[in-house]
Amino acid sequence: MLRVSLSRRLAAECLGTTMLLAIVVGSGLMGQRLAAGNDALALLANTIATGAGLIVLIHIFGPVSGAHFNPAVTFVLLLRREIGVATASLYAAAQMVGAIAGVWAAHLMFAAPFFEVSTKARDGLPQGFAEAIATFGLIGTILGTRRHRPDAMPSAIGLYIVAAYWFTASTSFANPAVTIARGMTDSFAGIAPHSIPLFIAGQLGGAVAALLLFPWLMQEDYTP
Amino acid sequence: MLRVSLSRRLAAECLGTTMLLAIVVGSGLMGQRLAAGNDALALLANTIATGAGLIVLIHIFGPVSGAHFNPAVTFVLLLRREIGVATASLYAAAQMVGAIAGVWAAHLMFAAPFFEVSTKARDGLPQGFAEAIATFGLIGTILGTRRHRPDAMPSAIGLYIVAAYWFTASTSFANPAVTIARGMTDSFAGIAPHSIPLFIAGQLGGAVAALLLFPWLMQEDYTP
Amino acid sequence: MLRVSLSRRLAAECLGTTMLLAIVVGSGLMGQRLAAGNDALALLANTIATGAGLIVLIHIFGPVSGAHFNPAVTFVLLLRREIGVATASLYAAAQMVGAIAGVWAAHLMFAAPFFEVSTKARDGLPQGFAEAIATFGLIGTILGTRRHRPDAMPSAIGLYIVAAYWFTASTSFANPAVTIARGMTDSFAGIAPHSIPLFIAGQLGGAVAALLLFPWLMQEDYTP
Amino acid sequence: MLRVSLSRRLAAECLGTTMLLAIVVGSGLMGQRLAAGNDALALLANTIATGAGLIVLIHIFGPVSGAHFNPAVTFVLLLRREIGVATASLYAAAQMVGAIAGVWAAHLMFAAPFFEVSTKARDGLPQGFAEAIATFGLIGTILGTRRHRPDAMPSAIGLYIVAAYWFTASTSFANPAVTIARGMTDSFAGIAPHSIPLFIAGQLGGAVAALLLFPWLMQEDYTP
Repeated sequence: MLRVSLSRRLAAECLGTTMLLAIVVGSGLMGQRLAAGNDALALLANTIATGAGLIVLIHIFGPVSGAHFNPAVTFVLLLRREIGVATASLYAAAQMVGAIAGVWAAHLMFAAPFFEVSTKARDGLPQGFAEAIATFGLIGTILGTRRHRPDAMPSAIGLYIVAAYWFTASTSFANPAVTIARGMTDSFAGIAPHSIPLFIAGQLGGAVAALLLFPWLMQEDYTP
Repeated sequence: MLRVSLSRRLAAECLGTTMLLAIVVGSGLMGQRLAAGNDALALLANTIATGAGLIVLIHIFGPVSGAHFNPAVTFVLLLRREIGVATASLYAAAQMVGAIAGVWAAHLMFAAPFFEVSTKARDGLPQGFAEAIATFGLIGTILGTRRHRPDAMPSAIGLYIVAAYWFTASTSFANPAVTIARGMTDSFAGIAPHSIPLFIAGQLGGAVAALLLFPWLMQEDYTP
Repeated sequence: MLRVSLSRRLAAECLGTTMLLAIVVGSGLMGQRLAAGNDALALLANTIATGAGLIVLIHIFGPVSGAHFNPAVTFVLLLRREIGVATASLYAAAQMVGAIAGVWAAHLMFAAPFFEVSTKARDGLPQGFAEAIATFGLIGTILGTRRHRPDAMPSAIGLYIVAAYWFTASTSFANPAVTIARGMTDSFAGIAPHSIPLFIAGQLGGAVAALLLFPWLMQEDYTP
Repeated sequence: MLRVSLSRRLAAECLGTTMLLAIVVGSGLMGQRLAAGNDALALLANTIATGAGLIVLIHIFGPVSGAHFNPAVTFVLLLRREIGVATASLYAAAQMVGAIAGVWAAHLMFAAPFFEVSTKARDGLPQGFAEAIATFGLIGTILGTRRHRPDAMPSAIGLYIVAAYWFTASTSFANPAVTIARGMTDSFAGIAPHSIPLFIAGQLGGAVAALLLFPWLMQEDYTP
């Protein structure tokens, strides 16, 4: 990472999360419109756009802010004492503001109502378990590549999300700010507000499980 | 970049833009023919071909001319005083000639009429706003990766376009030469001439916004 | 590879194979549900998720355990005397446990019955021949890239599987642990138990053929 | 390239071309069967499998034989005096044998008749022009990346083919050995024998055009 002032890092987190949500929700809207009821095709388009876009955003903003775009990632680094409480709180706030701005940017582009509330219920324990696995894998990808494969990190994270959109039953939100913001779009990518607490609980559980497991797993046993 | 005479650089800009438009319009024609009315599938094919092809073209022509293929990119570098007015004008002219030649090459391959005028209206402020966002993101990708991730630039630009085909409501033209040339194909990839000024206005607005924001964002605050 | 104790390496093989099977079976279930009978679309989604996920898993676990996730790979390295009999047996056991756990994790996420037996027959000599070719290519990819293109290995293996899902008539299981575990899901990705021996025979035959051919092919004839 | 005896290089050309054709024809057969008449979906699967597989094959066999797999590529290197007449002839023969073997391997896997003759006419000057452009771009990709972006060559060639399957009206055979061999499969990927001369003429024309243009274009004008 560059030597960058906090204000610039917060701007990077905010703008990056704005662009991420514009990509997730915008490509969801486009997929929904063009696929005409073929949900597999809509999700495939949503997947490819999100994976490609996320790789680009990490390349751009990684050197500035670390490219978290995700309070669960910031929370894990806080628990690892790599970031302080004050900075972590500001990061999370910047991510939340950016996420909502991204949904609105997508709505403006697609001439959808500015403010919406999703009606798409995503309920049941299996959905919460899916979010736990999705976030476990995401944090595992970050903690598992950053030391030994730092150059591969941006593409590894993007490719992980490509896989996770399909292999988790919840299509892998894996991000509390994304989850809350997607509550504000009544489209393919939305989530009804009453389903949000289950998702966030699963995400935090999965993040903590990854935090307990991966640093142990990646540790070297002998010094050379 | 190599040490290359201006004539060779202009040839590279012209040929690269020819190939880019042949890819965009050719894969649009192929997608339209094979998808038989399934627009999501046609755009998916168009997306994959364009993203893959653009990465290749940047690898080939980047060392020769910088691989702009886009007057908005050239314009941004002019405003940053990295290129002179005369060279920039010649670049833009070479791009424009190449873009039109690329449309015609695609038409020849697909046995479509040589000269066409698109009838596909793309109107309304949200479309112009979408082009502003599309171009903002494209210029941001260029300015955001070229210093800290130069090796990732070709794939980052290609992947950005993959995302932008889906997340912007306009399918991301993000290029004035491409926009004008696509006015000359009455196919999936076309744009009616009366819609072109709105698109170019959005593109220039988005480019200038990125020029104002990204150099500030990527700046280091402390010297090491 | 890092200097890692055997227990950590076995944990990596087990967890990596768990995640691999969760990806294969989970994305198969998601594809099946969303594609509504369009098998090409279901397999396309299954392909993209598996290829992307496999690349990520090799990046994460490669430095720890070598990221075999596959008794056929472990068996080849045993025949090459790069790994001992005891370690190889433990690797295979860890892979088998992980593979079954991955199927169950997918079933839990998608609220499918915990324990199932596949009814999807995959019979006939051409299917066995397809598995031989699939595994020949997989082992060839590993033996053919690890010396001269080690940095490209993770993506080469993932891309190979992307191709093999489509070019082999069996959709390329190419892995005895994956084959047995997929016998325990009655979904798109399943295989009926009576078809399993043919698949494993083909896989071992293809692995041995690759082991005989590729080290000869990649050998240098002259010393520089 | 490694220091490898001619017999090993010929084995690499033959085996690599076998695998390439097994991928092209096998994924064509699979796409045709699963897509049930949806040609866009069948070509999309064919594209992804071919592009992914080609990248892998170039990684494996590039260090051994240069990974031509294509008489047009060998011919261009002969004209550039980088390879002798005798070696070039043997390369082309090995490629031709491998290509036919690859078609047969695909037929065996898919339980299709061993020997077939395609009935799929691909006629008309635009098809020949498309093959010229397809091969021009392929040779341009090779000549344009090998000096300045050698590490990107395998993926650039694979991505070029991904684009070319869609942007050329002929779906980009771009390879005389592939063309002749695909005359021997009566499937999605086939080409009727009477259409083959037009395709090969276009391919050689495009190859020569690229040979005349790209070395001039990539030349440096000043010595540093």
